[in-house]
Amino acid sequence: MAKYVYNFGKDGTDGDASMKNLLGGKGANLAEMAKIGLPVPSGFTITTEVCTYFYANGKQYPPELKADVDAAIKKIEATMGKKLGDTNDLPLLVSCRSGARESMPGMMDTVLNIGLNDKTVETLAKKSGDERYAWDCYRRFVQMYGDVVLDMKPKSKTDIDPFEEILEAKKHKAGVKLDSELKAEHLKELVKEFKAAVKKQTGKDFPEDPIEQIWGGISAVFGSWMNDRAIVYRRTYGIPHEWGTAVNVQAMVFGNMGDDCATGVALTRNGSNGEPGITGDYLINAQGEDVVAGIRSPKKIEESLKKDMPKVWEQFSKVALTLENHYRDIQDIEFTIERQKLWMLQTRNAKRTGFAAVRAAVDMVNEGLITPQEAICRIPANDVTQLLQPIFSGAGLKGKTPITRGINAGPGAATGKIVFQPDDAERIVQKNPKEKVVLVRRETTPEDLRGMIVAQGILTAFGGAASHAALVSRQLGKACVCGCDGLDIDYVKETLTIGKKTFKKGDYISVDGFTGNVYEGEVPTSPSEILQVLLEKSLKAKDAPLYQRYQQLMSWSDRYRKLGIRTNADTPTDSKRAIALGAEGIGLTRTEHMFFEGEKIDHFRRMILADTVEAREEALVPLLKIQQTDFEGIFEAMEGRPVTVRLLDPPLHEFVPHEAKEQEELAKKFGLDKKKVAERVHELAESNPMLGHRGCRLGIVYPEITRMQARAILQAAVAVAKKGTPVHPEIMIPLVGNITEFRHQEKIIREVAAQVFKEKQFTVDYLVGTMIEIPRAAITADEIAEGAEFFSFGTNDLTQTGLGISRDDYGAFINQYKELEVFPADPFQTLDQGGVGKLIKIAVAGGKETRPDIKLGICGEHGGDPASVKFCHKAGLSYVSCSPFRLPVAKLAAAQAAIEEKKEKVAKKGEDNGTREFYGVVKTQCQCQCGCKK
Amino acid sequence: MAKYVYNFGKDGTDGDASMKNLLGGKGANLAEMAKIGLPVPSGFTITTEVCTYFYANGKQYPPELKADVDAAIKKIEATMGKKLGDTNDLPLLVSCRSGARESMPGMMDTVLNIGLNDKTVETLAKKSGDERYAWDCYRRFVQMYGDVVLDMKPKSKTDIDPFEEILEAKKHKAGVKLDSELKAEHLKELVKEFKAAVKKQTGKDFPEDPIEQIWGGISAVFGSWMNDRAIVYRRTYGIPHEWGTAVNVQAMVFGNMGDDCATGVALTRNGSNGEPGITGDYLINAQGEDVVAGIRSPKKIEESLKKDMPKVWEQFSKVALTLENHYRDIQDIEFTIERQKLWMLQTRNAKRTGFAAVRAAVDMVNEGLITPQEAICRIPANDVTQLLQPIFSGAGLKGKTPITRGINAGPGAATGKIVFQPDDAERIVQKNPKEKVVLVRRETTPEDLRGMIVAQGILTAFGGAASHAALVSRQLGKACVCGCDGLDIDYVKETLTIGKKTFKKGDYISVDGFTGNVYEGEVPTSPSEILQVLLEKSLKAKDAPLYQRYQQLMSWSDRYRKLGIRTNADTPTDSKRAIALGAEGIGLTRTEHMFFEGEKIDHFRRMILADTVEAREEALVPLLKIQQTDFEGIFEAMEGRPVTVRLLDPPLHEFVPHEAKEQEELAKKFGLDKKKVAERVHELAESNPMLGHRGCRLGIVYPEITRMQARAILQAAVAVAKKGTPVHPEIMIPLVGNITEFRHQEKIIREVAAQVFKEKQFTVDYLVGTMIEIPRAAITADEIAEGAEFFSFGTNDLTQTGLGISRDDYGAFINQYKELEVFPADPFQTLDQGGVGKLIKIAVAGGKETRPDIKLGICGEHGGDPASVKFCHKAGLSYVSCSPFRLPVAKLAAAQAAIEEKKEKVAKKGEDNGTREFYGVVKTQCQCQCGCKK
Repeated sequence: MAKYVYNFGKDGTDGDASMKNLLGGKGANLAEMAKIGLPVPSGFTITTEVCTYFYANGKQYPPELKADVDAAIKKIEATMGKKLGDTNDLPLLVSCRSGARESMPGMMDTVLNIGLNDKTVETLAKKSGDERYAWDCYRRFVQMYGDVVLDMKPKSKTDIDPFEEILEAKKHKAGVKLDSELKAEHLKELVKEFKAAVKKQTGKDFPEDPIEQIWGGISAVFGSWMNDRAIVYRRTYGIPHEWGTAVNVQAMVFGNMGDDCATGVALTRNGSNGEPGITGDYLINAQGEDVVAGIRSPKKIEESLKKDMPKVWEQFSKVALTLENHYRDIQDIEFTIERQKLWMLQTRNAKRTGFAAVRAAVDMVNEGLITPQEAICRIPANDVTQLLQPIFSGAGLKGKTPITRGINAGPGAATGKIVFQPDDAERIVQKNPKEKVVLVRRETTPEDLRGMIVAQGILTAFGGAASHAALVSRQLGKACVCGCDGLDIDYVKETLTIGKKTFKKGDYISVDGFTGNVYEGEVPTSPSEILQVLLEKSLKAKDAPLYQRYQQLMSWSDRYRKLGIRTNADTPTDSKRAIALGAEGIGLTRTEHMFFEGEKIDHFRRMILADTVEAREEALVPLLKIQQTDFEGIFEAMEGRPVTVRLLDPPLHEFVPHEAKEQEELAKKFGLDKKKVAERVHELAESNPMLGHRGCRLGIVYPEITRMQARAILQAAVAVAKKGTPVHPEIMIPLVGNITEFRHQEKIIREVAAQVFKEKQFTVDYLVGTMIEIPRAAITADEIAEGAEFFSFGTNDLTQTGLGISRDDYGAFINQYKELEVFPADPFQTLDQGGVGKLIKIAVAGGKETRPDIKLGICGEHGGDPASVKFCHKAGLSYVSCSPFRLPVAKLAAAQAAIEEKKEKVAKKGEDNGTREFYGVVKTQCQCQCGCKK
Repeated sequence: MAKYVYNFGKDGTDGDASMKNLLGGKGANLAEMAKIGLPVPSGFTITTEVCTYFYANGKQYPPELKADVDAAIKKIEATMGKKLGDTNDLPLLVSCRSGARESMPGMMDTVLNIGLNDKTVETLAKKSGDERYAWDCYRRFVQMYGDVVLDMKPKSKTDIDPFEEILEAKKHKAGVKLDSELKAEHLKELVKEFKAAVKKQTGKDFPEDPIEQIWGGISAVFGSWMNDRAIVYRRTYGIPHEWGTAVNVQAMVFGNMGDDCATGVALTRNGSNGEPGITGDYLINAQGEDVVAGIRSPKKIEESLKKDMPKVWEQFSKVALTLENHYRDIQDIEFTIERQKLWMLQTRNAKRTGFAAVRAAVDMVNEGLITPQEAICRIPANDVTQLLQPIFSGAGLKGKTPITRGINAGPGAATGKIVFQPDDAERIVQKNPKEKVVLVRRETTPEDLRGMIVAQGILTAFGGAASHAALVSRQLGKACVCGCDGLDIDYVKETLTIGKKTFKKGDYISVDGFTGNVYEGEVPTSPSEILQVLLEKSLKAKDAPLYQRYQQLMSWSDRYRKLGIRTNADTPTDSKRAIALGAEGIGLTRTEHMFFEGEKIDHFRRMILADTVEAREEALVPLLKIQQTDFEGIFEAMEGRPVTVRLLDPPLHEFVPHEAKEQEELAKKFGLDKKKVAERVHELAESNPMLGHRGCRLGIVYPEITRMQARAILQAAVAVAKKGTPVHPEIMIPLVGNITEFRHQEKIIREVAAQVFKEKQFTVDYLVGTMIEIPRAAITADEIAEGAEFFSFGTNDLTQTGLGISRDDYGAFINQYKELEVFPADPFQTLDQGGVGKLIKIAVAGGKETRPDIKLGICGEHGGDPASVKFCHKAGLSYVSCSPFRLPVAKLAAAQAAIEEKKEKVAKKGEDNGTREFYGVVKTQCQCQCGCKK
């Protein structure tokens, strides 16, 4: 028979940290904390299997659960020395909380103060000596229980909240503004009125029996696993619905029984920038929810806890260190101080910014706490882009005074139009994805998630560094300034007033999540510390602590990864930038991008408009020179690294003007008949340009273009090589679907090469290969490899053709596709491994069968996406190629892929000849955030 | 050492008919004829391997060839009792002809009268007693040798032909119009002048040595394998360039040595309609080339040979019968009568129309000459469509008198605009593929092939039933009337005058290839005999001899084929037509086609323009009724056969008006804002509609459409079933790429089905399946088969996505792709087996793995293409579906596929327990025209 209930606490703990799948993150960590002797209030965890059972069986529980829970409650009573419903002594009160495998902060329901009823409230009042406190607890409990368990929470913002209505009326009647000004008698009346409201709405009396209350709480928590916002959250973060949540029932301890009580949250290192030292917020005489809700502005632990409660501070510092050493990662701790006694409520690996992730991980390696492999696997590869994000430039800020300042809760710089409603933000950005907005709210709630996702930054009036706004912003990598009490926000008028200045919706505002400063208007941004050192050279490495750690991380990544990392670059400037960011070559140079600079487009247009081979060849003459110069620049910049150059790819229609007036001008310029120009442009238009006359099909119809391009590449290569810089051109034929197409173009290239080498009396090595970007190419890769010396997967087009979905037209059904989870992630961002990935595997197998040493790369945008990079590693590619700014992500992801693979192998073999430690397999539980889901 | 030279003739024959690959068709058949004792002039064949050697070795011959040829010449001399260069007796003259594995009439070069020189011509004159004859032979020889061997033939039509120029001058000087009016002295002068022209142009004397002449002929024939028109021909008919040609050197016999001589061509049965009895043309006192060239109008063998030469006729009849019985197929015979002695020059399986192919094959089965399996395999499946081609309707011809009459050389009726230049014809039809043209020529030459391919019909002034125009037309299935001497054609003015009536280029004309009649203007057409019996019921089977044979053929096909044959039909009318043509079910009903009838489109447009679910559901109400009625009609028509209905597939943009004016009207009609209509239409436009919002993507975004369609199908099914007609609806979800998409739509269908069955208290069996038309579906077919009960390959779209080629945009590069032979055939006509075929195989394997009893079909246009049908058989599909008029083709191809497979198995196993004979493996050589290339 399955064990559904796990106890934890001083008198016996069944679980441990390794049981996260079964007990959820919170349950497993409570058990672990109890196990290592930390002061954890006693309780028990109902496993995630019960959640699965619950949903599989029409919301019924396993029959044996009842008895197990009863026994576990008895154990809490015994350990804590309190009894549920006790009218003689301080009664046992419990909380009932969710706890999934991965933290989903604020997404599911919680019920506190379970066990209070008309009788125990009196005992609590008597024994605590604080009648107002007891009735306040009771009033909160009834309200929360009504909202959460009895489902009385308003369904939309326009619905009436019966409890809030009663509360407002009561405050009005009592002539007070704040809840805390209400007296015990008011609270007693409120409880009565709340209960009447419950009876009226549900038709049933409010439950007085503590056991019934506990079951209500348990059911509410399990039920909240499937609420809308939890579903949205899981979709955003890729958490499977099948995992389910555990439920933790735990004795309550009270941070609100007087000024010798407190409650708080803390990180063992700074979650924004990773600097060492405890940071956190606490509130004297408050319950934990008050801190997270952000209604009262909390005190900073590192600033005042030592002064407020010196003994507790000392104990707390030790506990925090114990926890970080135990878990070998930054811990996010919830605690309560009940009459000077410290209780640990929760610990978990802290959410952190990319800045903090890099800094802390590298520091911990340097401190000897973790291995470099663990550091690599622990940093979500995408987060490294934060380090390359622009910050407000010194120049941009010159002369600017912050109009106000808040808590620097999410690093990064954001500038955009003020929007007050999350829905508005979503609508505006959906309409125009280039539009930048800053979401300005009093505080944020889980309902605001969608709006936060699309905003550049978030600015709130209330809440600290652990508030919802702060937490979610950091996770999303958004700039966030919160708890900025100078803000006066009017949601109805849609205005934000700061001092005497009033901003309307749509006005520009800028927030600096590094400093907490808020600026009026748009503020120009400047590159990150990393880029200042690497690209701008405006900063020395020795003055750049983050850069130093970034460099360490990159060098470790280089040590472990097996995939080569190349870049997509079309100019010498791009190329140099990419080398600074670690590119080992160019995986894709799009020759047509060169044509758009300055007057070059005219030559190209003349070529397109030519209607004889002779006229076309004439027009190609100046283009040859232009292209050769460009290629020389790139070859020089790349200093001997391989450079893959793709021959002309896009349909010609993209290059000609479509408006009559522009056509007329062009005709005049070239001395052509305007009617002829219009005709030619019309001729070039296509029903489905994606599947039209492009790629090698251009080179086959106009072999003179291929000849010109091949000549430009090879003449450039010879010229650069002659001057002493080695060159490795790889000429890539696009959109091949058939070996015959490849052979046709290859023949031209090889002929031109032979001519050029003969003319120049100089030879360079070069390769001729192809893009694999249409399904037929993948399917017949064995044949194509007979000619092609390398394959480069053009996964953008392979996704379009493989899935039959035009990226440009996807918008019409993308929302429903996300909703339905047709693909685990947007297939244009993360490779569709189940479909396109299969095509790639077929092509890899075919290519290697024919040509075992074939070079295999990827040059679609997926080359910079971590999950896709890992796929490429597994699929056996030689390299990935991505845009310069994605290079660090690709490197890190490639290293993670190699380490994970090794780990899996080691785990399978059960070897332990040192490799286990080397690859970070020290603990039974994987501590990394690599997503390996163990 | 390889044997390069094979002798044939009375005194010893090395080869036989089975050696077609080595000796070419002509050589093998000459050998076979000689072997069975027929009077064949002695000669030898140089093998196709020499041709291959020739091209692989810089146009050099194998060293041992020289001696072999010398020996073979000696043998001819011995057998024929004549000597090369003999000045004492009638000298041996030889011909030198090409002969490839498959006949390529007129495509390669021939040299006749080799052996004539200044000395032998005198002997010939003396011994034949006809000086003019001898010098005419010599004059022709020098001219032909100059043209063909010495490469003096003009390269283009505007170049001057030196021989023709001299000839014209001579005629002018002699004051005559025709060549035949020239006297011996003129001819002697001509020879001198021709030789001077040769010396002038080539710098060398004309060769007098007969052996040198023979080698010149051999080289010219091998060289002509790679001439332009031969290459075009091979491309058109799919003959590999590697096959090469053989060369036949054979003693000349003379049909032009007086009026007791003749030459001719004959078929053992009628090549136009298959009727029994010899047909053919002959010319008294002529060489063979005169018949083929069509300059003189020949006599009909069946009409006058018996009278002209009774003894020869008797012998000839016997020989023809012997040949047909020996080869068990219609023979195409070339013969010459030299002074009352019959010589057989060539026999081969005759080219024939579809009419003749069906009639003769079925008759031969009934005569006991061949098996039904042989009959099936012998008829090119595509040719059967000729039997369904329209002919001029009686009504259309009513009151019309033919303006002239020619030889009914290619059956079928053609009406179209007059075009005189093949290039013009090609240009006009390329520009507008719907344009119909009739090519009007004095006579046709191999250079005209491209123009003939695009024309509806061909009309010529000269040439008989064996002329180039006739031969090629029949092969192409074009209506052709030739030898129509009433035509006066002026190529310069581009006019055609018939009697007093003059037609200009672009005027309409109509030709009846069944009767030879030519009509002025457009003539409406009426269906074929088959269709008159089957569809129009205007003819009784007993009065329709061709229909009877067609039915016999179809019943044999039904007996042997394993593939099911379904049809694509969207209306009850289509369905009935298809049943008459043998459909066993519907493989594809395109529901959207129904919307285009009458006012239905308005309802559909209202649905498209609706901007809320409610408005859309309202607009769907009348559509439900309309669709249900349509489906009821189809289910009733199909009488219990399975009906696959595809849910809405095309992008909605296809259904709305794109012009502002029409949009305005629509807005008025629906009481909508015209701006809103315009906006919605604009919104629906897509960059790549082929890859856009269509197929199941529509049903996913607008589930109410799927719901309506499912309801219409199932309510119709229930209504029809209730009335006693069984129904088997198969609901097909289009454009699925992912099991999730399928499940979403399937759920709706199953829910609707349950509702309908409950409402109507009646249940019918139905299937839910999907199109496999995008590569991801093929690649993940194993997953999709978990839900789908059947797959139908939508090969049109699978070709577009699999190859990344838009059918609509293919035109921009199709010519170069054909030129390069990127695909063995147009991939939109014949399935690309190497690419798309591989995807299908993957899908079949995946589908069967998950669901062994899965129904597998094809509903793309490839379902009616013989090669593709054979592929489907091999790939293990359950059925093919095609348009009603392709059904006979599909059936025949399916039967051929089954028989060929069995034959291959039998051949592999070497079994002979009766099956060999049953499946027509009686002869060592395959006599069929199935393309099995054995």
